[in-house]
Amino acid sequence: MSQAGPRGPLAIVCGGGRFPLEVARAAAAAGRPPFLVGLIGAADPAIENFPHVWLSVGQIGKLFSELRAHKIAEVALIGALTRPEFSELRFDWGAIKRAPELAIAFRGGDNQLLAGVASIFEREGLRVVGVHEIAPALLAPIGPIGRRAPAAAAEADIRAGAALLAALSPFDAGQGAVVADGRVVAIEAAEGTDAMLARVAQLRETRRLRFSGPAGVFVKAPKRGQDLRFDMPAIGPQTVAAAAKAQLQGVAVAAGAALIADRDEVARAADAASLFVIGYRP
Amino acid sequence: MSQAGPRGPLAIVCGGGRFPLEVARAAAAAGRPPFLVGLIGAADPAIENFPHVWLSVGQIGKLFSELRAHKIAEVALIGALTRPEFSELRFDWGAIKRAPELAIAFRGGDNQLLAGVASIFEREGLRVVGVHEIAPALLAPIGPIGRRAPAAAAEADIRAGAALLAALSPFDAGQGAVVADGRVVAIEAAEGTDAMLARVAQLRETRRLRFSGPAGVFVKAPKRGQDLRFDMPAIGPQTVAAAAKAQLQGVAVAAGAALIADRDEVARAADAASLFVIGYRP
Repeated sequence: MSQAGPRGPLAIVCGGGRFPLEVARAAAAAGRPPFLVGLIGAADPAIENFPHVWLSVGQIGKLFSELRAHKIAEVALIGALTRPEFSELRFDWGAIKRAPELAIAFRGGDNQLLAGVASIFEREGLRVVGVHEIAPALLAPIGPIGRRAPAAAAEADIRAGAALLAALSPFDAGQGAVVADGRVVAIEAAEGTDAMLARVAQLRETRRLRFSGPAGVFVKAPKRGQDLRFDMPAIGPQTVAAAAKAQLQGVAVAAGAALIADRDEVARAADAASLFVIGYRP
Repeated sequence: MSQAGPRGPLAIVCGGGRFPLEVARAAAAAGRPPFLVGLIGAADPAIENFPHVWLSVGQIGKLFSELRAHKIAEVALIGALTRPEFSELRFDWGAIKRAPELAIAFRGGDNQLLAGVASIFEREGLRVVGVHEIAPALLAPIGPIGRRAPAAAAEADIRAGAALLAALSPFDAGQGAVVADGRVVAIEAAEGTDAMLARVAQLRETRRLRFSGPAGVFVKAPKRGQDLRFDMPAIGPQTVAAAAKAQLQGVAVAAGAALIADRDEVARAADAASLFVIGYRP
């Protein structure tokens, strides 16, 4: 086993979606096969193809004893997780001991929650790492993915969307917006990207939003100053499908600060739907 | 007829919703019975209780000839209108003559569109007036409407929502947001207030958004620097009903810069739903 690399064994706490497994495969391919912690109700059952354990969100004591048993030094927190309500977590003893810190973390936006969770890990002597440290090949590059590139008007929409997201950053709200012909059409908050793009699709279908032909760009970027170890913005083939359904011209993500799942398939899907997908220089 | 007041006869171009008729009644009560211009497909048929004419959005030539025939000096543009697509307007000759100005107005956000429309009116010698000039009784006052007032946490959510809307102002996007326990839950853009509140209701019902009991405030305010003659933010009894359905604690609007339709009914509905409705000092 090459699990004990120069930085010691790695664990991945797995939420929902495809990223936990993609990151696990990329880490394994880089000679660092990880130990996976599947969050019950969120993680893909396919994590069982790796050394793994299943835990519920409130089992923090058990989490730390598992990580100690596997001599884990670094942990990545990957994948989607519906934000739990503090009062609904079923805490084990290890969590109850840390309840005051957890309660503080739960006040405020997602950034604050994740920063609080990270500091709890760090007090256990664990280093929390981001995808950019363990699987940099998943980061968005600068430039188009697939054959299409944005025209000048779409470039302007990308800049407007990026500026809007930067202005929203202090409010710890969303990571995405749709801008079309200079108009801000949708801004993402708690509903998430899929629901926001579905809303744009519906506004187009019902002619509440009238454009002739494809219009607008979905722009996705981390909050300014966001800790990229957590909740890095991510797109994948399903994002391209949702953008096509919303009759957009393309998708733009902050290069080096957003993840692309299944890049080859993203390129194929974008070409097939006549969309551009681009990593822009933030 | 007292139509020829000190500032001359008044016309109200009527979009959808209750406001055009409320403003018409308020103006008439103030001794200035208006001439109503109903936009076909948008205005309430009850405008026929006043002197009126029906026009489609592209009949700008006919609009100006009607206003001249009635010796109108001032025009208010009131009510909701689905933003038309420039290429879909059926222009009469008066509109075709003004097509270059109209095309410029149609590029960009709603503010730019409305400012462009206003300058077209002004070149015809007409003054475009706002509700605050002809029916100030409809403006939100400072303080609670109804019996409830926000607690300290809700006051903080109101301040956060107001700051968020101010930060969004340069982007000519929405006028509304929902903030709950310090978290930005929803931000309004092209979908409008009703759809945004319905989204929050759904996020609560499906437990994507988990709070125990009523949580959050719907904050509504004009964009910073917005010309209050156009598209002034407005709430009414249906806003209270939608806020209750979204399990909010209350509704806050910028005092003096937002309209309240049917204030008595708003107060009754708020009390019945145990919500606060408040005009905050912007």
